Amino acid sequence: MKQAAADNVINRLALKPYRKGMVLAAESMLLSKMLSAIGDPPIQIVLWNGQEIRRCKEAVVASILIRDRGALYKLITDPELQFGELYSSSRIEVQGNLLDFLDAVYRAWPLASDKVAGRKLLSPFGHARPNTLEGSKSNIHHHYDIGNDFYKLWLDEHMVYTCAYFRDEEMSLEDAQLAKLDHICRKLRLKPGETVLEAGCGWGALAMHMASRYGVKVAAYNISKEQIAYARQRSREKNLADRIEFIEDDYRNATGGFDAFVSVGMLEHVGVEHYRDLGGMINRTLREGGRGLIHTIGLNYPRPMDAWAARHIFPGACPPSLAQMMQIFEPFDFSILDVENLRLHYAMTLGHWLDRFENQADTVAQMFDDEFVRMWRLYLAGSMTAFRTGGMQLFQVAFARANCAVPMTRQYLYESLAS
Amino acid sequence: MKQAAADNVINRLALKPYRKGMVLAAESMLLSKMLSAIGDPPIQIVLWNGQEIRRCKEAVVASILIRDRGALYKLITDPELQFGELYSSSRIEVQGNLLDFLDAVYRAWPLASDKVAGRKLLSPFGHARPNTLEGSKSNIHHHYDIGNDFYKLWLDEHMVYTCAYFRDEEMSLEDAQLAKLDHICRKLRLKPGETVLEAGCGWGALAMHMASRYGVKVAAYNISKEQIAYARQRSREKNLADRIEFIEDDYRNATGGFDAFVSVGMLEHVGVEHYRDLGGMINRTLREGGRGLIHTIGLNYPRPMDAWAARHIFPGACPPSLAQMMQIFEPFDFSILDVENLRLHYAMTLGHWLDRFENQADTVAQMFDDEFVRMWRLYLAGSMTAFRTGGMQLFQVAFARANCAVPMTRQYLYESLAS
Repeated sequence: MKQAAADNVINRLALKPYRKGMVLAAESMLLSKMLSAIGDPPIQIVLWNGQEIRRCKEAVVASILIRDRGALYKLITDPELQFGELYSSSRIEVQGNLLDFLDAVYRAWPLASDKVAGRKLLSPFGHARPNTLEGSKSNIHHHYDIGNDFYKLWLDEHMVYTCAYFRDEEMSLEDAQLAKLDHICRKLRLKPGETVLEAGCGWGALAMHMASRYGVKVAAYNISKEQIAYARQRSREKNLADRIEFIEDDYRNATGGFDAFVSVGMLEHVGVEHYRDLGGMINRTLREGGRGLIHTIGLNYPRPMDAWAARHIFPGACPPSLAQMMQIFEPFDFSILDVENLRLHYAMTLGHWLDRFENQADTVAQMFDDEFVRMWRLYLAGSMTAFRTGGMQLFQVAFARANCAVPMTRQYLYESLAS
Repeated sequence: MKQAAADNVINRLALKPYRKGMVLAAESMLLSKMLSAIGDPPIQIVLWNGQEIRRCKEAVVASILIRDRGALYKLITDPELQFGELYSSSRIEVQGNLLDFLDAVYRAWPLASDKVAGRKLLSPFGHARPNTLEGSKSNIHHHYDIGNDFYKLWLDEHMVYTCAYFRDEEMSLEDAQLAKLDHICRKLRLKPGETVLEAGCGWGALAMHMASRYGVKVAAYNISKEQIAYARQRSREKNLADRIEFIEDDYRNATGGFDAFVSVGMLEHVGVEHYRDLGGMINRTLREGGRGLIHTIGLNYPRPMDAWAARHIFPGACPPSLAQMMQIFEPFDFSILDVENLRLHYAMTLGHWLDRFENQADTVAQMFDDEFVRMWRLYLAGSMTAFRTGGMQLFQVAFARANCAVPMTRQYLYESLAS
């Protein structure tokens, strides 16, 4: 429903005896109920006329300012979807620190878990666009092809758009991204001369790192046109073109025989219904003695992505629970060797991205518009908070063929790097 | 069917024209087909009359000697169950090294995977005795109450009957068992004064280690009468009785509030249908900020335990796949922090046990009988081989409440122990 129409309905149904600026007792009550439904976080709501609604007894960490009645009704009808919509369009504001506000809300949320989990599972947005070969193209284009220049503004110099690894918390983002690439390569136990299949290679940083530092040959798949073009250009500049083949195609079409499989930040876009196909592709292309690693955002239990992010940020995305991930491995007798949860590293990574993004906010607003800036700010800040408070996980899952030679301990991952 | 009756049937149906010692062409063919069905391992079969049946082209690593016709028919009818039965009763022998023989068979097995996996999934023995409160008592009694004196003959001095952790491959079994206890305590990040719930505490080694080295209080559950009696005695001798409560009861009856949950080598006996109850118990007893660890034998994909082991060694046992394990955690929003696969450590542990067992074989035969010795030899050797060749896994799964403070990296697990 468009804004003007919504306002009309509201005016006709409920507000005849009141001036438009006034607030009905029933409206305050509905907002209060909404606060209760999301676990009574230490926040308050401030309305257009200055009226304050709060339920918590402790000090509030931030306020939501609702600027108009239409926004109020949208918010109480579907807070998960509408908070983002209204924040982006400035019809609601957060007064106080956005991160503190999100932290308070995300920490309270699970306390209302039964209701919320039930509602989330019914959300129609999680699988809105199926990840068929064509659907995936459209879904990936939506996010990854909005412009390399945009991502260059706030990613690290290697253009790595996945969770970094802060081996030391004081590391720069650049160093932590390299540390992540090394952490993955060491888990894969890459040896010079081996061949690696990478599914979903982003702007090519991992492929180039593996080829240059570990002496392997890489076949790297990606369906994002802009990313592949950038990766090809960079690999030529670095004289790595003979060791890396960047292939603009769907991972499902991969062929050949490889010593290792790796995928970083792609599984979120695959869709659980395609996990068995993914496992089948790995099984088809992985040699005897082969091993692999999948790095992905994950969840403690299956649920669709929140409706707002699914609509505006990541159409078709659905991070898996670990049980769901096992649908990739179990049908093919792969052994899980190691699962590491790096959620705090993603919170730190997103913190760096958010700082850089804010420093470039004016430039982004010129590239797009203010609404885009607010939308991306909320996405980065919300994701950071979800990883910090435990609502989202980051799993690195290392696996191997059942009879593959495996290391006795993980000590080798924690010895100093001879670079 | 009893031996004499089986021989009668065989004689009546097929062997009229032949002397009893002779071998029918059809019988050779059936044995050859059996070898094919298990993936053509480099072994041969030798019959009572000296006839040899082999299909592989490479050198054979060992032979199965079948001593009588009844044994032949039992073996080809159900090799998974009957190999153990006939080996235990000496009606078949392995000529050559038993471990080499098992290794050859276990490595060939997956090559025949489709047929075998199908058959295994149909095996009626996996869940023969349900793990109700009463059923569990009977199942656990079968294995763990056959005598502390028996286990003392070949376990380490701390009586730890689960996979050790060979931080260094040259470690003694004693040291590797202590290293395992420390590995678990460090993963749990135990702090002095905290409380721990242990489900399935064996002879109490972990509970005593946690209480004496990490300064925590432990409530330790076990339904094995003999183990609990031993654990209580030892904890009094060590002046730890005030810090450990050994409770002879089912884990499902646990109550109270704890900072950590731990279970080592119990999940194999729980039964997948009870995992949600186990998760509910953990959820009920784990405090805010709590974390836990489950150490268990596992599988790459769900299948029942092999029929012979399920009948004679571990009634009611069923090691889970990781997806099955997640039924404990996902319904309660627990975060998986770390999964480590220690299968090679269990192969080494079983190697130590087997050596010690062989050194005590005469004493064991006096305690029980020769058949018991052969049965346990096969169980220890077969398990060792399954862990070595990748047919069985050993998972340590560390988890925590979703909003628990978690360490950034696992570096702390690999720093030297200040003991």
